Amino acid sequence: MFELKATDKNTKARVGRLETAHGSIDTPAFMPVGTQGSVKAVSPRELRELKAQIILGNTYHLFVRPGVEVIKHFGGLHKFINWDGPILTDSGGYQIFSLAKLRRISEEGVRFQNHVDGAPALISPEIAMEIQTALGSDIAMVLDECPPYPCHYEYAARSIQLTARWAKRCKENVEHRTSNVERPTRQLIFGIVQGATFEDLRQTSAHMIVDLGFDGYAIGGVSVGEPEEEMFRAVEASEPVLPTDRPRYAMGLGTPPQILELIARGMDLFDCVLPTRLARNGTAFTSTGTLNLKNAEFTMDKGPIERNCRCLACREFARGYIRHLIKAEEILGLRLITLHNLHFYLDLMRQARAKIERGTFEDFRKQFVANYKTRDVDVAV
Amino acid sequence: MFELKATDKNTKARVGRLETAHGSIDTPAFMPVGTQGSVKAVSPRELRELKAQIILGNTYHLFVRPGVEVIKHFGGLHKFINWDGPILTDSGGYQIFSLAKLRRISEEGVRFQNHVDGAPALISPEIAMEIQTALGSDIAMVLDECPPYPCHYEYAARSIQLTARWAKRCKENVEHRTSNVERPTRQLIFGIVQGATFEDLRQTSAHMIVDLGFDGYAIGGVSVGEPEEEMFRAVEASEPVLPTDRPRYAMGLGTPPQILELIARGMDLFDCVLPTRLARNGTAFTSTGTLNLKNAEFTMDKGPIERNCRCLACREFARGYIRHLIKAEEILGLRLITLHNLHFYLDLMRQARAKIERGTFEDFRKQFVANYKTRDVDVAV
Repeated sequence: MFELKATDKNTKARVGRLETAHGSIDTPAFMPVGTQGSVKAVSPRELRELKAQIILGNTYHLFVRPGVEVIKHFGGLHKFINWDGPILTDSGGYQIFSLAKLRRISEEGVRFQNHVDGAPALISPEIAMEIQTALGSDIAMVLDECPPYPCHYEYAARSIQLTARWAKRCKENVEHRTSNVERPTRQLIFGIVQGATFEDLRQTSAHMIVDLGFDGYAIGGVSVGEPEEEMFRAVEASEPVLPTDRPRYAMGLGTPPQILELIARGMDLFDCVLPTRLARNGTAFTSTGTLNLKNAEFTMDKGPIERNCRCLACREFARGYIRHLIKAEEILGLRLITLHNLHFYLDLMRQARAKIERGTFEDFRKQFVANYKTRDVDVAV
Repeated sequence: MFELKATDKNTKARVGRLETAHGSIDTPAFMPVGTQGSVKAVSPRELRELKAQIILGNTYHLFVRPGVEVIKHFGGLHKFINWDGPILTDSGGYQIFSLAKLRRISEEGVRFQNHVDGAPALISPEIAMEIQTALGSDIAMVLDECPPYPCHYEYAARSIQLTARWAKRCKENVEHRTSNVERPTRQLIFGIVQGATFEDLRQTSAHMIVDLGFDGYAIGGVSVGEPEEEMFRAVEASEPVLPTDRPRYAMGLGTPPQILELIARGMDLFDCVLPTRLARNGTAFTSTGTLNLKNAEFTMDKGPIERNCRCLACREFARGYIRHLIKAEEILGLRLITLHNLHFYLDLMRQARAKIERGTFEDFRKQFVANYKTRDVDVAV
């Protein structure tokens, strides 16, 4: 299911290939986020042209709207959204904690009222897995508790125990239902390591989750407001516990330099709303940092967003035109920046894989990070 | 410049071909509206795939933002927006009357404050033509006064005289500047017939404009709130005065049945924001009338927007998915409906041309109009 093709001699970076029911994914891989059944502003055809190998769907959002029964009626998420490549779904937990109202966590699961019409619902570990099976995603995530930042040690210590008990229930639920389903059509299940910013809790959580045995392992509860160094430490503490022959997914991350840093720390899969979300605000990624295309300096600029970029926006459109579109609130403007930003992230992964295979990843990472100017706006979203 | 290829024996419908600096246009033709330098939500590639042969740009909007100097700097509107097909620009007059603040009409022209930042400006007949030359459109429209509906006879009678004097100044300005420019690179100039809802004024205006001599003739001041029958009468009164060997443009029209009715009344060119504007509200055109895809009845609907439609949205996406996208305010939803609606309008023109050439247009028109249920919402925008 996961083939390790190359490992870097200077860092923990790896190149691999993950096989799923709807195709294979070259890792390190970036997963564009299709929250509500659409990668925002992008069509499936454009995703294919971008050579995206996997996209992410948010179970919470799809559960709330259009609802699982609708997606089941259409034959699953792939058919509903007309995307026949791999899809990873999260468990819904993270969005319940960040979006839903009146949420109450108990051993059973999470009760909440959704943020759209306030309807009450329960998501338990079993329900989370059954929803994801109904959605038909290629990779399903277990239900976990994602504590806020900052978080007391005692709370985080209790929380990783709950997360482990829930992970066990998720695994049992899936095994119970799918014991007779063979690969390659079997849905893969990833466990999630929690433990907030506490290194010993991260290690304990990783051991508990690995002992349960999953198809892959995610590091959750990162990028929830903590400083970047704490995020790196949480990953560094968890990673050595994870088996090398399984893919590792750093959830909800990150900026381009962060992703390279996490690849260097042994991570394989990434998802982040930054490329699509910042695009809608007129912000484009480049190898030297982000550009706010609303700025007056671009009014007369005949150049592309980034020189030598091969994306559709850069091949055909000038910064000055894109700036005009964004200022005039024309949808084409955010479409073009979204295409560029996704291309930028996906191409960064292609470059990382090539550099790892050639043994030059560490130089590449250092140079990229040194050249990239991080601006506050890029992460404060 | 305009070749009449077929005329209908039962109606005044005609098939023609109009040659412009950026290519030829088969008439009857529909022109998607690219108000601010973008047909809303659509890329130039998609316009080419839709086989749109000409698009419209609004001089007023482009004058206000990004400004003529910016577009000149980029080498004209075609290069700025990356569309190498024909473009028609209006004179800006209509939008000054409908959008700008503090407008004051005098013999000189129209003084106004724009609706974006309130900056004062003057558009005179000469300035209107010079702006359109700077934009580099293939077809430019003269500056006219578009009286509101309803309008007193006396006002309309004085107004057509002003419109005729302005038309003369437009023609002189262009001839003065472009006397040494040969076709096919010469910008075509269309005159505009006014006269509100008064048949005799329409005829007088048409005679005055035709006597000045233009490359084509438009009927303006229609679809400004008057009942449909009055609009048809205004066209019917003007049309016999227009030379048959020049294209005729019914400005700002209309619904699908209206367009067929106007083709039957000898009109060749149409533009209308309905297909793009209604799409953004979730409304799709079909041969039996519009569908509001927000309606709950479409939740589980696996069919395309319209059966047998060959547009990209109908080939690949179900009503139920598009409904979900619109309800969830996903941009892909309005993109798909926009593509469908533009395809619908452009395909209606292709059908009309084929029926005229085969001599079956009148049956086609009757049947289409009988099958098409017009809803209030379709025109009240």
